[in-house]
Amino acid sequence: MEFSIADRAQILIEALPYIQKYNGKIVVVKYGGHAMVDEELKKSVMGDIVLLTLVGMRVVLIHGGGPEITNMLDRLGKKSEFVDGLRVTDKETAEIVQMVLAGKINKDLVNFIDNIGGHAIGLSGMDSHLIEAEKISEKLGYAGRVTSINPKPILDMLEKGYIPVVSTVGCDKHGNIYNVNADDVASQIAGTLGAESLISMTDTRGILRDKDDETSLISEIQVSEAPQYIKSGVISGGMIPKVESCIEALRRGVNRVFIIDGRVQHAILIETLTDAGVGTMFK
Amino acid sequence: MEFSIADRAQILIEALPYIQKYNGKIVVVKYGGHAMVDEELKKSVMGDIVLLTLVGMRVVLIHGGGPEITNMLDRLGKKSEFVDGLRVTDKETAEIVQMVLAGKINKDLVNFIDNIGGHAIGLSGMDSHLIEAEKISEKLGYAGRVTSINPKPILDMLEKGYIPVVSTVGCDKHGNIYNVNADDVASQIAGTLGAESLISMTDTRGILRDKDDETSLISEIQVSEAPQYIKSGVISGGMIPKVESCIEALRRGVNRVFIIDGRVQHAILIETLTDAGVGTMFK
Amino acid sequence: MEFSIADRAQILIEALPYIQKYNGKIVVVKYGGHAMVDEELKKSVMGDIVLLTLVGMRVVLIHGGGPEITNMLDRLGKKSEFVDGLRVTDKETAEIVQMVLAGKINKDLVNFIDNIGGHAIGLSGMDSHLIEAEKISEKLGYAGRVTSINPKPILDMLEKGYIPVVSTVGCDKHGNIYNVNADDVASQIAGTLGAESLISMTDTRGILRDKDDETSLISEIQVSEAPQYIKSGVISGGMIPKVESCIEALRRGVNRVFIIDGRVQHAILIETLTDAGVGTMFK
Amino acid sequence: MEFSIADRAQILIEALPYIQKYNGKIVVVKYGGHAMVDEELKKSVMGDIVLLTLVGMRVVLIHGGGPEITNMLDRLGKKSEFVDGLRVTDKETAEIVQMVLAGKINKDLVNFIDNIGGHAIGLSGMDSHLIEAEKISEKLGYAGRVTSINPKPILDMLEKGYIPVVSTVGCDKHGNIYNVNADDVASQIAGTLGAESLISMTDTRGILRDKDDETSLISEIQVSEAPQYIKSGVISGGMIPKVESCIEALRRGVNRVFIIDGRVQHAILIETLTDAGVGTMFK
Amino acid sequence: MEFSIADRAQILIEALPYIQKYNGKIVVVKYGGHAMVDEELKKSVMGDIVLLTLVGMRVVLIHGGGPEITNMLDRLGKKSEFVDGLRVTDKETAEIVQMVLAGKINKDLVNFIDNIGGHAIGLSGMDSHLIEAEKISEKLGYAGRVTSINPKPILDMLEKGYIPVVSTVGCDKHGNIYNVNADDVASQIAGTLGAESLISMTDTRGILRDKDDETSLISEIQVSEAPQYIKSGVISGGMIPKVESCIEALRRGVNRVFIIDGRVQHAILIETLTDAGVGTMFK
Amino acid sequence: MEFSIADRAQILIEALPYIQKYNGKIVVVKYGGHAMVDEELKKSVMGDIVLLTLVGMRVVLIHGGGPEITNMLDRLGKKSEFVDGLRVTDKETAEIVQMVLAGKINKDLVNFIDNIGGHAIGLSGMDSHLIEAEKISEKLGYAGRVTSINPKPILDMLEKGYIPVVSTVGCDKHGNIYNVNADDVASQIAGTLGAESLISMTDTRGILRDKDDETSLISEIQVSEAPQYIKSGVISGGMIPKVESCIEALRRGVNRVFIIDGRVQHAILIETLTDAGVGTMFK
Repeated sequence: MEFSIADRAQILIEALPYIQKYNGKIVVVKYGGHAMVDEELKKSVMGDIVLLTLVGMRVVLIHGGGPEITNMLDRLGKKSEFVDGLRVTDKETAEIVQMVLAGKINKDLVNFIDNIGGHAIGLSGMDSHLIEAEKISEKLGYAGRVTSINPKPILDMLEKGYIPVVSTVGCDKHGNIYNVNADDVASQIAGTLGAESLISMTDTRGILRDKDDETSLISEIQVSEAPQYIKSGVISGGMIPKVESCIEALRRGVNRVFIIDGRVQHAILIETLTDAGVGTMFK
Repeated sequence: MEFSIADRAQILIEALPYIQKYNGKIVVVKYGGHAMVDEELKKSVMGDIVLLTLVGMRVVLIHGGGPEITNMLDRLGKKSEFVDGLRVTDKETAEIVQMVLAGKINKDLVNFIDNIGGHAIGLSGMDSHLIEAEKISEKLGYAGRVTSINPKPILDMLEKGYIPVVSTVGCDKHGNIYNVNADDVASQIAGTLGAESLISMTDTRGILRDKDDETSLISEIQVSEAPQYIKSGVISGGMIPKVESCIEALRRGVNRVFIIDGRVQHAILIETLTDAGVGTMFK
Repeated sequence: MEFSIADRAQILIEALPYIQKYNGKIVVVKYGGHAMVDEELKKSVMGDIVLLTLVGMRVVLIHGGGPEITNMLDRLGKKSEFVDGLRVTDKETAEIVQMVLAGKINKDLVNFIDNIGGHAIGLSGMDSHLIEAEKISEKLGYAGRVTSINPKPILDMLEKGYIPVVSTVGCDKHGNIYNVNADDVASQIAGTLGAESLISMTDTRGILRDKDDETSLISEIQVSEAPQYIKSGVISGGMIPKVESCIEALRRGVNRVFIIDGRVQHAILIETLTDAGVGTMFK
Repeated sequence: MEFSIADRAQILIEALPYIQKYNGKIVVVKYGGHAMVDEELKKSVMGDIVLLTLVGMRVVLIHGGGPEITNMLDRLGKKSEFVDGLRVTDKETAEIVQMVLAGKINKDLVNFIDNIGGHAIGLSGMDSHLIEAEKISEKLGYAGRVTSINPKPILDMLEKGYIPVVSTVGCDKHGNIYNVNADDVASQIAGTLGAESLISMTDTRGILRDKDDETSLISEIQVSEAPQYIKSGVISGGMIPKVESCIEALRRGVNRVFIIDGRVQHAILIETLTDAGVGTMFK
Repeated sequence: MEFSIADRAQILIEALPYIQKYNGKIVVVKYGGHAMVDEELKKSVMGDIVLLTLVGMRVVLIHGGGPEITNMLDRLGKKSEFVDGLRVTDKETAEIVQMVLAGKINKDLVNFIDNIGGHAIGLSGMDSHLIEAEKISEKLGYAGRVTSINPKPILDMLEKGYIPVVSTVGCDKHGNIYNVNADDVASQIAGTLGAESLISMTDTRGILRDKDDETSLISEIQVSEAPQYIKSGVISGGMIPKVESCIEALRRGVNRVFIIDGRVQHAILIETLTDAGVGTMFK
Repeated sequence: MEFSIADRAQILIEALPYIQKYNGKIVVVKYGGHAMVDEELKKSVMGDIVLLTLVGMRVVLIHGGGPEITNMLDRLGKKSEFVDGLRVTDKETAEIVQMVLAGKINKDLVNFIDNIGGHAIGLSGMDSHLIEAEKISEKLGYAGRVTSINPKPILDMLEKGYIPVVSTVGCDKHGNIYNVNADDVASQIAGTLGAESLISMTDTRGILRDKDDETSLISEIQVSEAPQYIKSGVISGGMIPKVESCIEALRRGVNRVFIIDGRVQHAILIETLTDAGVGTMFK
């Protein structure tokens, strides 16, 4: 579609109050799902992030792994066992996770952002011990639980004008590496930084009243209503821990937490700079 | 017209390269003509300026007078005599010009900007002797010619995050007040500040090849071509000194100078954040 | 009179403890009365202010209007009605007040200060919404009451080395302009800034025990004694609201408040840099 | 061996002039060879670097790959072809190099440094486009040649108190990844930063007059003597490009360039804080 | 003795955790006794201080007088009377003390430090009234007791990168000069600065369980144990006030206080950068 | 004499242009002669200096010795020999000079300034090697000639808000102490600092055309006229080297150099803040 210049101007000017609201604020984006594998969506997410940075927000990008980890494990002949939905992570698997997340995905994202005019620095949990973790249980091995977040490297990068891109690999003081949950890391980082908002990308429309009906989106959920939704099955399966991370972020002082549909082009831009919403907001 | 969220996102994202180009740069806007009297246009100009400020530009607004001065002179029974198109300005007329420009128009603009979320400070040529002037000739009285610009108060305001709004009244070291040409002031301020661009608002489509045909707009003029256009009458009448001010600004190091159509809503936004143009650019 | 160089030195050296006491402190001067119309007195006040600035004080000059407003209203054929001593202010009157205060008097003062070597910036209540106001009552129209002071523009000007000159016109978030009481504005600004002292210029010797005897000056009044003086008529008429503004400033944390005789040359200098007093101090 | 406290003190005090000489200076360390695979040597190098940082030097650690890359290529069934001693690098190989260098080795080093009390941030050529490269020839594929160094991210990290650890992977503006020569990167980074010294670790004693006699070490070589040594075969094989990188660093303004024996414990410390030398210095 | 380079490296690397512990911390050294008169010891102390400064500590050197004062008093024919172990100090004696401490010893130390590569500034209690004092009793004259410490000049010198060298002469607001106890000054300065540690040099091994047996050193004393040791005579004579100063420093928030043997070369270095101890630590 | 408040105000206001002229400028005062021994004059000089500091000048006080040195040498039984008007200075004499200047006179001045409300730090040539010197000739011993001035400690003190008081003792890199000429030091310090003016106090009215007639003062001398005045004997004896120091300061870029009559109360204040002069100005 072709837009008239008047249309363009009107839309830009309508973004004004949103830009004012977020000026100088920290926005943490948890990047994942389809948006990581579809090149068009990836381009749209990175474009959104650079734009938000230019209009005065301080954006932190948090990413996990996805199919590239499984793919590499397969190629190296490592079989994965799962316990309670968590990958049993031996030392070698943890190393492969580290390599793929911090070496491949992280640096590709950083490179992408720089190539469209942003300035990014890639960080992992090991850099200045940003993410410290510990074992959840012996049988899960190095599938870890976050024990502390060091906000200094992120704040230093923001102060110097960079977009910090954080891969969710944890470490401890003994040299061990941990595979940690990206939603959990994003929630804790947003809380520790006192972020204005946390935007978590998924591959659904958000929280649906009827999971088979995409038009049944619940656009706003009060923290107090969450248990009820879980009980009634509206929030279920993999969405439960994600929602719990969102609620945890709110408890840690983040003002607004969104679960947005990462399959929609420019979902982040729409969520922050327009009055439309493309997901569910938690308050 | 209603826009889809995808449309909104697309237009915002298309502004990205323009925002990058102007980031941190100084843009001087010479405000005048219809845009000063039509409330809708005034609102659109002030909205544009606040938006540009939020996306990282440092905007300086320069304004002259217009019908409010004539109106006040009429009410006070002052008759105006003109010599060579310039108002013969006695001491009392100069005082009335000062009062209307620096007291009425300037402060109304400042108030307007603040009410839509910007932070403006109104300055006149007297504030820290921003604009010093001298008589052009004895018979013209206090219709002055700019002798020097003090950029410090403007730069101080920009550094502190304000939008400086400058009324074009000059002064000298002996306490005299001068009515000075606003285009000339804008050109000299843009040059002294090393501005990236100067945008001058008029009540025409720009420079027209055929002045009766609005579709005959010349969208770009090389400085070297200007004399020719003046000779051939394409540039004529009141447009001649305006064009000369534009050329002067380029000579003083401003990168891009635009004469834009102030009757078009959001003309400034369109000129800076889209690839459309609503006037004539001088290079 | 000719002074010997020894006399000069002695007087300068005797100013030392006063200069030390005020070093880096904020002094708010409410300028008004005869000192605004008598050219010699005006020159003496502006000289004092520049000198105090140079010896390390941070001076803020607050001014109201005086005869120039009435004069302009007369010339424009506006008749003024008064209710309870306050001018009934319709929208047009408010605009004329704004124009005269912020455009004429304010910029003349700024120009004057610059011409004797100071660096001044003129501000009004509209600049970055320094003074917000609301209606006192419908029948008084836009004769307003101050609702909030934004100290940021004043502090920014002081930090950048300017003398802020503030004209007492108020505004609100809807674009209205208010005629506000200058003593009240001075008192609230001094309080909000945490000023060391507030010096309010009048056309009397100060508070006189016997109003017909200029030698009966009361040089110091405890806040607690004020009601008594009002009851007994020592403080009466227009002096009552002025004294109330002084007491209000003390309540807001200003250390010393003076009502000084603006008809005396260099009254401000005498009050701050010598042990003589030219008025009444409130503690 | 047990040292008496007097011995300890004497040795510490003898380091004083060296600490003074390097105070605040940038020292670039090219880490490689045995010191990367032997755990004891790795510990000794990282300890040296943290110590030098604490005594006031600003250390930048540059590392290449080594056997871990070959190992991973083998495990993934990628066969390596070599042309003129350079690995022919297809797109997939370049990705594996990136993953191992930036994800595995780099983050392990960063983690190691943090665990012994330093504060490190791992960077790659992609971070804020630190290292840009281009193809050397089509047949070599993504075995690249450095075209530019962006010193900003390194200087920002140093200013914020971090030890920057740089993995030598290059990128270009089109999203390609390049396998670049680590000696070359170290030389160019040292030159661009205006480093005081460049220390390059090898697995030999330095330049030996007789390659079979470790006691025939040449402890100092003038740049002008190098061609002669190459001609006579004293400098030969893989040492030639290494020496050329050293000379290039000197040409770019680095004051002192060392090739040191990485098999010696604390070789860096010895070279910088004592009058002993463990290799060859170029001047 | 000749050290191998490996020995040198090992000792330097063993200092690492101590350097980390003290990084950026303030260490106050009370210099006195034999170390002031023996040229070798003086050289060793000044070398230690410059080294500690270079490895990131902020060292403050406090010194008293010693035999040079007595010597000068003798030469000038002033006889000293003592009451309760304190010198009766008349005005002239106080002046001589000032002259020797602030003019001779202080400036010699400053000169010494500069000549070995440090940057020192000598301060006395009079400089910006660093040490204010009052009389202890009339009969003792100007043998004073410290009443307040002004930490600003010391902190300003540290911030500017100087080693402040403080001579322990006190003053008051009336121009009097006081001979004050150096241990007491050191303790109060360390407390006021929030120093990490206070190191007090003496001419003994530290606190000895049996004063005739140098091997009976008590290496650590809890504050609570001190009264007991005084009662039992383990701490006796001139050591009592010294110990009391140490305890006072701990009470004022200093973390570690040491009494060390100033007769041992590099005692300060050993105490701070090795795990050996050359005296008694108070906790 | 009693001054009216109007007189006081007039004198203060007449100082305004002088205060403006010197604002932020460095003024070096060479203090000496009667003003050092007469308590009233000392008080007047120190008061002047504190006042000038408060009105925005950055004052550096340089002092030599005077009778206190001779007095101390006498008391210690040291006889002084003179060669060419210069005291032959053996090592012991140099030490006594150091002690009296840096320990007694310097700290007394610092104390005096602090007690009247200034903030002073005393420096000597040894502090951060402010004054380096060398022997003039073997026979004169440690009567030295200045070889270099380190302006850093003075500039650091000024930046931190202190009045630096400098005693004119020199040192070298071998630990030697030198008795240096105070006029020469003052001239070189003023030149190195780029001072606005150098004020040198003497015990005469200035340069007199007829040395027996105090009314024959020459109030201004061009540098080019000096040789003539020396030839004709107008400038003679001890005044010759003083005048040469003044001329040297002008050559090093000091704008104005004054020889003023230190026997006049507040001579410095009069010279800087009034249009009266109390000596001879060199241009």
